[in-house]
Amino acid sequence: MTPRNVAPPLVWHHASVTPERRAHAQGHRALVVWFTGLSGAGKSTIAHAVEEVLHQRGRRTFVLDGDNVRHGLCADLGFSPADRRENLRHIGETARLFVDAGTITLSAFISPMREDRERVRQIVGNERFIEVFVSCPLAVCEARDVKGMYRRARNGEIADFTGISAPYEAPLSPALVLETAHLPLAACVNQVLAYLEPRLALGKSASP
Amino acid sequence: MTPRNVAPPLVWHHASVTPERRAHAQGHRALVVWFTGLSGAGKSTIAHAVEEVLHQRGRRTFVLDGDNVRHGLCADLGFSPADRRENLRHIGETARLFVDAGTITLSAFISPMREDRERVRQIVGNERFIEVFVSCPLAVCEARDVKGMYRRARNGEIADFTGISAPYEAPLSPALVLETAHLPLAACVNQVLAYLEPRLALGKSASP
Repeated sequence: MTPRNVAPPLVWHHASVTPERRAHAQGHRALVVWFTGLSGAGKSTIAHAVEEVLHQRGRRTFVLDGDNVRHGLCADLGFSPADRRENLRHIGETARLFVDAGTITLSAFISPMREDRERVRQIVGNERFIEVFVSCPLAVCEARDVKGMYRRARNGEIADFTGISAPYEAPLSPALVLETAHLPLAACVNQVLAYLEPRLALGKSASP
Repeated sequence: MTPRNVAPPLVWHHASVTPERRAHAQGHRALVVWFTGLSGAGKSTIAHAVEEVLHQRGRRTFVLDGDNVRHGLCADLGFSPADRRENLRHIGETARLFVDAGTITLSAFISPMREDRERVRQIVGNERFIEVFVSCPLAVCEARDVKGMYRRARNGEIADFTGISAPYEAPLSPALVLETAHLPLAACVNQVLAYLEPRLALGKSASP
């Protein structure tokens, strides 16, 4: 008796719970909202505030930002251009998995280079990727300096700091521009929600 | 007028949607079920079959396996012990984010080394990590050889192949052992569900 006679081979191992079935079960589609902008522009603040509203509306959400990603997934990476690129690729792959799982994924990373953001767009899929430019003049971000990072960068304590010693490439055609130096938080949040909500609706293709 | 007078600093950027609020909203807790075992033992098959049942019960689930992770998150890594370790660390961090997001996360990776699995347990948190040993004799796995990998490994075409040219360290005290050479798929699935379901229930600490 060969081992083959002991037990039949297990052959079925394809995913049966598709993104469409998840969307149908939870009543909404999933997207990546990618907030990009200078440190202190308000990316994380807006992402969490948007999440709060969506959660209260029964949407499935998650925020990926420096607080939960830098210290974990990319703990081994620094802030050099190459490390940033690799860091963003990992985040892009994680965001793709989250969207596949049906989660509205709010990503808040400086992500200063156009090429790196475009790579994330390719990973996630163009139709599921919403680029939001959190726009704020450097002087305003630096005056806020919530984490004291700009002061340290000016003192030369941080290398490759975006806006000080490393470039920031603004998006050429973002889905949204949020001017956080002029608009209050609630207005920024509403701008995101107004854009997002129609795109979460289930269409014909969302049936199981 | 300094920039600080133009706009007040944005200060609130703490996550307000906690794992507890997510659990309460969806009606169940989240855990990582970590399937480990030889190639061909049935890890992915069981993970997807468990997911199918959980999904039909309205649970929030996701499967992390070679089909969606190897080609993406860890595309740059191979099968050497060091690359496996780094690969599993990334997967552990991703699993942690998924559980934080409220998702029952079913991971199906050979993950042959005890030390690497223990690292994942530390990343995810011991109370959220369920180790499941998908146990099957090498001879049976090799006879199944669903992907033709064992044949290639025997021919020397694949280096560091677990069970052939690389070690597999069975768990010392797994939460469950599934003997796939003797049990049909449905019985394995039921074993997992019977263990899992009581642990998904909301307790007092799950209130928002």
